[in-house]
Amino acid sequence: MLKQMFDQVREKSPLIHNITNYVTVNDCANMVLACGASPIMADDKEEVAEIQTICAGLNINIGTLNSRTIESMKIAGMRANELGHPAVLDPVGVGASTLRTSTANELLKAVKFTVIRGNISEIKTLAVGTGTTKGVDADIADRVTEENLDEVVAFVKKFAERTGAVIAVTGAIDLVADAKKAYCIYNGHPMMSSITGTGCQLSALTAAFVTANQEHPLEAAAAAVCAMGLAGEIAHERLTSQDGNATYRNYIIDAIYHMDGDELEHGAKFEVK
Amino acid sequence: MLKQMFDQVREKSPLIHNITNYVTVNDCANMVLACGASPIMADDKEEVAEIQTICAGLNINIGTLNSRTIESMKIAGMRANELGHPAVLDPVGVGASTLRTSTANELLKAVKFTVIRGNISEIKTLAVGTGTTKGVDADIADRVTEENLDEVVAFVKKFAERTGAVIAVTGAIDLVADAKKAYCIYNGHPMMSSITGTGCQLSALTAAFVTANQEHPLEAAAAAVCAMGLAGEIAHERLTSQDGNATYRNYIIDAIYHMDGDELEHGAKFEVK
Amino acid sequence: MLKQMFDQVREKSPLIHNITNYVTVNDCANMVLACGASPIMADDKEEVAEIQTICAGLNINIGTLNSRTIESMKIAGMRANELGHPAVLDPVGVGASTLRTSTANELLKAVKFTVIRGNISEIKTLAVGTGTTKGVDADIADRVTEENLDEVVAFVKKFAERTGAVIAVTGAIDLVADAKKAYCIYNGHPMMSSITGTGCQLSALTAAFVTANQEHPLEAAAAAVCAMGLAGEIAHERLTSQDGNATYRNYIIDAIYHMDGDELEHGAKFEVK
Repeated sequence: MLKQMFDQVREKSPLIHNITNYVTVNDCANMVLACGASPIMADDKEEVAEIQTICAGLNINIGTLNSRTIESMKIAGMRANELGHPAVLDPVGVGASTLRTSTANELLKAVKFTVIRGNISEIKTLAVGTGTTKGVDADIADRVTEENLDEVVAFVKKFAERTGAVIAVTGAIDLVADAKKAYCIYNGHPMMSSITGTGCQLSALTAAFVTANQEHPLEAAAAAVCAMGLAGEIAHERLTSQDGNATYRNYIIDAIYHMDGDELEHGAKFEVK
Repeated sequence: MLKQMFDQVREKSPLIHNITNYVTVNDCANMVLACGASPIMADDKEEVAEIQTICAGLNINIGTLNSRTIESMKIAGMRANELGHPAVLDPVGVGASTLRTSTANELLKAVKFTVIRGNISEIKTLAVGTGTTKGVDADIADRVTEENLDEVVAFVKKFAERTGAVIAVTGAIDLVADAKKAYCIYNGHPMMSSITGTGCQLSALTAAFVTANQEHPLEAAAAAVCAMGLAGEIAHERLTSQDGNATYRNYIIDAIYHMDGDELEHGAKFEVK
Repeated sequence: MLKQMFDQVREKSPLIHNITNYVTVNDCANMVLACGASPIMADDKEEVAEIQTICAGLNINIGTLNSRTIESMKIAGMRANELGHPAVLDPVGVGASTLRTSTANELLKAVKFTVIRGNISEIKTLAVGTGTTKGVDADIADRVTEENLDEVVAFVKKFAERTGAVIAVTGAIDLVADAKKAYCIYNGHPMMSSITGTGCQLSALTAAFVTANQEHPLEAAAAAVCAMGLAGEIAHERLTSQDGNATYRNYIIDAIYHMDGDELEHGAKFEVK
């Protein structure tokens, strides 16, 4: 099933509209290209509706939101809904400021998202209004472990039910769930957290996957999360003793560039709950 | 002749003002440095005229245009004209939205450009008002091939005549033409299209080349296009079986860093029509 | 002493708020992560005070300042002062435009900075109102050499006294001084100037170092400058004959990723004046 998800991305090469932050935007664009899709970045309110129209999917990331782009996010999101385009929300740093929290909540009200992807602190903030966000990273108090896994799975399914979105919570263990089914994913490498924007890249990748597989948003999102983690493993094996987070960043994108459905199917490590 | 074009860039090290998009801006800056020139990025309307004054050339790229920067582009472009500085326009995604199309057309009216560089869909949109832009990539229907080459050359020369600019159309075959003479360039590698912003980087490189060679805009632009394609070939030869588009991106900039006029002269593949 | 400075960064992992330019922001984020700290980038005036509150330090860089972000810089800087957070100013290109010069001067009036880091032309512009800034690079006329070293040291100490900030002047020889003591640092490699944003990265690194070592701003800033230069040396040794400025950029961040207090202590080359 995961194989088919990736194969469809390379076959359909969907054009993905990204309204994202200026920190990791280049990596997001190269990641979208690496998986076989096409990125376009546009964020002026005068053009986002029109740009959305020529695209097939949307990725909204609030990492460096501002008064100008918040409005554009809403316009693009609503247009994506009208057109039936899958839309992904990455609520970067939600809980770290009132602006981020209120913007994410307004987006959730105005736009129906196909997938919401964040770390556990961000998802908790969205779901219950409190999470202990440490800037853009998850707080250790919120961490998903083998011990609290069942509890978190139940929580994530409930939030998925309420929003109608697939929820992807990424961390040491990744969870991807709709109201009924959760993928608990064990791919990845701890060093991925030493690179800025692996989460942002994954959200862009997820947008490509769900856009190419509109009938299967849960499986498509799970495939994207597995692919990113697997790329982190493959890239880590290449590192020499002198390579650090900058080289690792490049190798992860490189690994997606060379990955196909078969490699993903073979390398994915998950259980379904 | 191409040799001299590159040698002049390294000798004069011109300071190039770039008003460009936030997706590929870092690569553009490193590309300008790689060829021996110096970049400065400034986009606030309060400073762009002054920044232009201390520079020698200008590169305008509308990739992530917005209401604030559009005005800055006009101011900088008009100031460049007043000062006799070469100016390059990269009309990224023109045709994909009304905002992009109207902005590019307004810039063409307000500013005399030395070079306009885009893919064939973008150039067609500028020239005849219709191109089938697929986001920021050229549409396959517009593609330049051996079969339609003479026809496209004639079209590009005509548009060069009308605008007074050198027109650089990049794709599988690159065309660089003024009203009378066209370089058909066969350097490059298909994998370059899997990197975000090779076009943006080329526009920045072209600005450096035409600024260092003001008496020879056609040859300078052709040299920049050959250099970029040759860098794509050299970089591709270095790739291991695990290297993908992220590493390739770095290697292309690295190849320009090590290139000189002799290597360019020797490696350039073109015919003149 | 330098060893302790770096060890504290890795031990405390301070969260650093960066209001910086969109050219080098990704490298700044990866550099902050490489040294063991955490970055967050936020620049909307509605959230910067709140974001500052959850952080421990601040890095302001005016590289692509605009009317919107200038106000945010002031708000964040004043909030950092109220909270007792160390703040670093990188006055990129000050002297190149009236907007940059007036913004830097206003920031110096409104905010007490812990460290001001720039090239010699930028620091001269701030200190005496005239420097011969060549865009974002230092002018050769201003260059620090063995011949004028004592004179420049005296000048920098005086500016440190007036501002109450540690002044870091980077170039072929780096100076880091407060009113009484100056570190003259001989680490680094000339090829570092062929990468965009090594200065920006150093300012972000410096913010991490002074935040983790609040009792020792002079030593912390000197340690950051030595670390960056040493990383430039280590990275340069890794370069093959085909590697250029793009690969070098990655290797410098990689070198910081692997550096620890001992390596820094051992590799730092400086004298105190």
